[in-house]
Amino acid sequence: MVKVGIVGGTGYTGVELLRLLAGHPQVEVTVITSRAEAGRPVADIYPNLRGHFDIAFSEPDLATLGACDLVFFATPNGTAMKLVPQLLEQGCRVVDLAADFRLQDIPLWEQWYGMTHSCPELVAEAVYGLPELNREAIRSARLVANPGCYPTAATLGFLPLIESGLVRLSGLVADCKSGVSGAGRGASVGTLMGEVGESFKAYGVPGHRHMPEIRQNLAQLADQSIDLTFVPHLLPMIRGIHATLYATLTDEADLQSLYETRFSHEPFVDVLPAGSHPETRSVRGVNHCRIAVHRPQDGDTVVVLAVIDNLVKGAAGQAIQNMNIMLGLEETLGLQAVALLP
Amino acid sequence: MVKVGIVGGTGYTGVELLRLLAGHPQVEVTVITSRAEAGRPVADIYPNLRGHFDIAFSEPDLATLGACDLVFFATPNGTAMKLVPQLLEQGCRVVDLAADFRLQDIPLWEQWYGMTHSCPELVAEAVYGLPELNREAIRSARLVANPGCYPTAATLGFLPLIESGLVRLSGLVADCKSGVSGAGRGASVGTLMGEVGESFKAYGVPGHRHMPEIRQNLAQLADQSIDLTFVPHLLPMIRGIHATLYATLTDEADLQSLYETRFSHEPFVDVLPAGSHPETRSVRGVNHCRIAVHRPQDGDTVVVLAVIDNLVKGAAGQAIQNMNIMLGLEETLGLQAVALLP
Amino acid sequence: MVKVGIVGGTGYTGVELLRLLAGHPQVEVTVITSRAEAGRPVADIYPNLRGHFDIAFSEPDLATLGACDLVFFATPNGTAMKLVPQLLEQGCRVVDLAADFRLQDIPLWEQWYGMTHSCPELVAEAVYGLPELNREAIRSARLVANPGCYPTAATLGFLPLIESGLVRLSGLVADCKSGVSGAGRGASVGTLMGEVGESFKAYGVPGHRHMPEIRQNLAQLADQSIDLTFVPHLLPMIRGIHATLYATLTDEADLQSLYETRFSHEPFVDVLPAGSHPETRSVRGVNHCRIAVHRPQDGDTVVVLAVIDNLVKGAAGQAIQNMNIMLGLEETLGLQAVALLP
Amino acid sequence: MVKVGIVGGTGYTGVELLRLLAGHPQVEVTVITSRAEAGRPVADIYPNLRGHFDIAFSEPDLATLGACDLVFFATPNGTAMKLVPQLLEQGCRVVDLAADFRLQDIPLWEQWYGMTHSCPELVAEAVYGLPELNREAIRSARLVANPGCYPTAATLGFLPLIESGLVRLSGLVADCKSGVSGAGRGASVGTLMGEVGESFKAYGVPGHRHMPEIRQNLAQLADQSIDLTFVPHLLPMIRGIHATLYATLTDEADLQSLYETRFSHEPFVDVLPAGSHPETRSVRGVNHCRIAVHRPQDGDTVVVLAVIDNLVKGAAGQAIQNMNIMLGLEETLGLQAVALLP
Repeated sequence: MVKVGIVGGTGYTGVELLRLLAGHPQVEVTVITSRAEAGRPVADIYPNLRGHFDIAFSEPDLATLGACDLVFFATPNGTAMKLVPQLLEQGCRVVDLAADFRLQDIPLWEQWYGMTHSCPELVAEAVYGLPELNREAIRSARLVANPGCYPTAATLGFLPLIESGLVRLSGLVADCKSGVSGAGRGASVGTLMGEVGESFKAYGVPGHRHMPEIRQNLAQLADQSIDLTFVPHLLPMIRGIHATLYATLTDEADLQSLYETRFSHEPFVDVLPAGSHPETRSVRGVNHCRIAVHRPQDGDTVVVLAVIDNLVKGAAGQAIQNMNIMLGLEETLGLQAVALLP
Repeated sequence: MVKVGIVGGTGYTGVELLRLLAGHPQVEVTVITSRAEAGRPVADIYPNLRGHFDIAFSEPDLATLGACDLVFFATPNGTAMKLVPQLLEQGCRVVDLAADFRLQDIPLWEQWYGMTHSCPELVAEAVYGLPELNREAIRSARLVANPGCYPTAATLGFLPLIESGLVRLSGLVADCKSGVSGAGRGASVGTLMGEVGESFKAYGVPGHRHMPEIRQNLAQLADQSIDLTFVPHLLPMIRGIHATLYATLTDEADLQSLYETRFSHEPFVDVLPAGSHPETRSVRGVNHCRIAVHRPQDGDTVVVLAVIDNLVKGAAGQAIQNMNIMLGLEETLGLQAVALLP
Repeated sequence: MVKVGIVGGTGYTGVELLRLLAGHPQVEVTVITSRAEAGRPVADIYPNLRGHFDIAFSEPDLATLGACDLVFFATPNGTAMKLVPQLLEQGCRVVDLAADFRLQDIPLWEQWYGMTHSCPELVAEAVYGLPELNREAIRSARLVANPGCYPTAATLGFLPLIESGLVRLSGLVADCKSGVSGAGRGASVGTLMGEVGESFKAYGVPGHRHMPEIRQNLAQLADQSIDLTFVPHLLPMIRGIHATLYATLTDEADLQSLYETRFSHEPFVDVLPAGSHPETRSVRGVNHCRIAVHRPQDGDTVVVLAVIDNLVKGAAGQAIQNMNIMLGLEETLGLQAVALLP
Repeated sequence: MVKVGIVGGTGYTGVELLRLLAGHPQVEVTVITSRAEAGRPVADIYPNLRGHFDIAFSEPDLATLGACDLVFFATPNGTAMKLVPQLLEQGCRVVDLAADFRLQDIPLWEQWYGMTHSCPELVAEAVYGLPELNREAIRSARLVANPGCYPTAATLGFLPLIESGLVRLSGLVADCKSGVSGAGRGASVGTLMGEVGESFKAYGVPGHRHMPEIRQNLAQLADQSIDLTFVPHLLPMIRGIHATLYATLTDEADLQSLYETRFSHEPFVDVLPAGSHPETRSVRGVNHCRIAVHRPQDGDTVVVLAVIDNLVKGAAGQAIQNMNIMLGLEETLGLQAVALLP
């Protein structure tokens, strides 16, 4: 059994790691930390875990964490970068679910995240944990930067188009919609049910932290800079991201075949039959990204529809997929359940 | 008191007409028809109307309807065109909330609606009832084609940009999201709460009937044909449309001022302060369209956010606004309530 | 025009007072206070008010408030009792939407609300503002204690049964369900959409502050103490309370006729036809209580179903109804809209 | 591997059987029937099953079904009774998720279900499949009547109280609330999201088919007839039942200990710590029933709160639990996932 630790386990990504790891046959969660809830059994806060975990939250302790084979950081941005160097020294491997190691351009990171990076030297080493892009590098990585939820959906959706050079690299649009769990479990007026239920809005149109991350990914695929407009929206529901992506074709292509071929060996990317419209509920609770590609009215605009569960493929599930790859386990272990529908 | 009739009053636009007309000081609803519910008091089906309307549904009867000053058609597509000629002959004026008279290009209409138009001669006479575009023509119209819900939001949102010639007329994108009441009150698996609750999806990406309507409106504004991609999505909520519109700037402009100036005299279009993100709930139950205009990262993509209540400004409210204009009443009569928030 | 003030206008009852008063033909809101938001226009926080109110929040000031004909307190419990004595001295009348003056038994109040009452002498003078119970006393009251949301629904539902002496006074059950807006607009984990959406639970079963209030009301009706079990539940929706009430019949009676007769002159209580099941949406946004009474299987258990909008008849609407009565205005002024359905 | 068939697989209980059986290590679904969808792959209708099942719907065929070790009927009431006799003859065992074999009193069944029973002789043989009540009989049963969703929650909640003789057998109240998936996937106006979203109501107060079923269960526990009022309500959410149960204590007892002891060996009944309020989301997607018992204000009314997922412990999960018991498999196989929260 592999021993894993979780730092910062009281948020939605923490409980989701526990939910998924409960069904993982080769992993044992040996430590889960929370300063605020130290001493309290995890099932006290999350009753769905009753009968599955006897473990209690503990104060973060480097020695205990360092004894793990792998540690997940499910902490606010800026926390992992302070502890990761010491954990790596102890031979422990790390998957950071926050943003600390996602952007290779450190001044850009510091501008968007409003803080000084405390271990820039590790950023270059960190591998961006999108297996569909970087599987081989993940395999040997000591430190994996787990992608953001929007960037996962948008990057997977654009990937075949950009990689194949079939679309213009300017004027790309990612119109994305997320359930409220993406905003986390912190007390805030903005995500009260009275505020976000039965309503819909865009937010962060002038600028959102996931924009440079998506741009970095697409630029890597294009091998040159790209121009993208990213508009996130808040859905009156809990789980799920739907990315509606727009690009301008510069060449003829069999788009359906392009997508099917590119993802044919990917265990967690499912290209739907031509003409489909994926629903977020079709991936509720699971690590899949379901994608459909359209060319409306045979015009030169491609429309890609991609759905993920923001807490699974957009966070905890992808983190476990990365862990499986890093530790040489079967990539789909613990991630084989069927989505909850209805 | 003005006498009005409603044909086909059992659907959501029918009850919404009644809800709004209950508060209109100069209108009396003298007849409301429904073949299926003839004889049944309206408040039996819609308990919110108890105490406000004593009227019962009746079989549609041309003489009774013709005695009205104005008749609303809240019927399925293809119904109004069969009855309107006779009503007009009787001197009655008509607002059709369905699509029968919306498209000036009759072959195009027949292609999208899958039926032969039974009175093409009236299409040319019909005025497209978007007051912000056609107020003067509406004033004297005998027959007004009330706009579709998506076309209302998308047209109002694009209007200043296209009218001013500031954007490229190709590559326009209207990424629109609607609450489920837009799908009506007919029994169908597709809009069961078990199917659409807590989920989100696009639909009709290959082609949707509102696409040619939006194109017609924008082409009228541009005075030339335009190229638009329209993607509708279904929100897990009841009321509200959010249009997220993308266009490419071809010239410098003070967009905020452009929008504020264009709509400064419009009673039902509210341009929000720069940097805003309108919420659909801010127009729940009311006839307003709230709009914000953004230019993210000072790039050349303009993003317009426009919200309406699909049943009010997107249907019954706009129909009443048109009626007020046609009958020489104060344009805002019956439409002055405050949106229900939270 | 009557001049009214609102103390503590940033919460849901504050904005609801404004929404309803915007349509009141004889009232002008001259002052609305908020320490936290002083100087900010109300429409900044509540965009639905744009175009309806130019007023800004101000620091609470006794002189300004005292110049009003009537002041509403939409403040947390314990605030009104500190300011009300001075306002009354200035000749201003007061409706308190919080709980400060609801319980006549001061030690009981202090026990449930966990604080010392600062003006117990006014409690005896205060009139409990349920017009269906106390209309005459409200007419001349200087100070009205606006009822709690659950107590309004439960008391109206039980009223004819208890008043008529037809049921046992022990073993009464009020199983009540409320939308989340009842919990207010304060930032809290417990009412995040991620926590309460798509889920349902009871809360406060060991004891809830509205229990002694309901008991006080029913005891007044019975003219003796009663025994009641009250279980509140949280619904995954925003507005609406549904009270399901159980009592044991001790005598034969025509319950339908009992209810219809008792409420026949009440403008805001609507007894549905026999066999009905009221929906909360049938009162969304309006001041009505809709009630149905059942005697399942002709047994000796009576089941009463009563619905209100917790923010209207359960708070702001009832406060305005009380204001109308106190000021000699038509009781239904400003409260005549039709519920928003769907 | 055990071979199972599913008759009538297109509804919500059908897809839920597939979802759960996908994770069952000792079961293979060899046939799933649907007249309407014969020939269509199951994953076409339910995209969450893509990659998990290659099977297509087929016309119901007795030979194919009879070759299964066990057949689930996920059909409308009245279907199973026509086919079960022949399947039993072929040596196949059956779990009926509909109501055909739930009531031992055949005239009562015929009255509530409005049809003549076609194989009354099998009703006596059928075992009511609530393992917590009838585990031993289920083990050897050829035919199991899987309980209704409300009866499962209400019976488990009342069980220790009635079994122990601690409460009055009259005046029992079961105030139950269900998500809309309980109404199935048939097209109907009554369960459109536009009709049931953001609203709440009771239904069936004069009489509901689950009432005689609950009474039968409780009478079995009490060994005498009981008197119960059952009021079902419809929640604006998809999954979950919450039963709030009321009974009058006739004796002193340590209720917490009573419940914990009674269910200590039950793998799917979880008694929460004293003072708890179970949430339906804590059992979303899983086979558990979580229960809390309260005695508010130390009065003589006991309040029991019990939650289940109506599609799992209230239908497909319990059916699989019954199958496991019937076939001598580990009772919890395929039912060990963690509930999806948030």
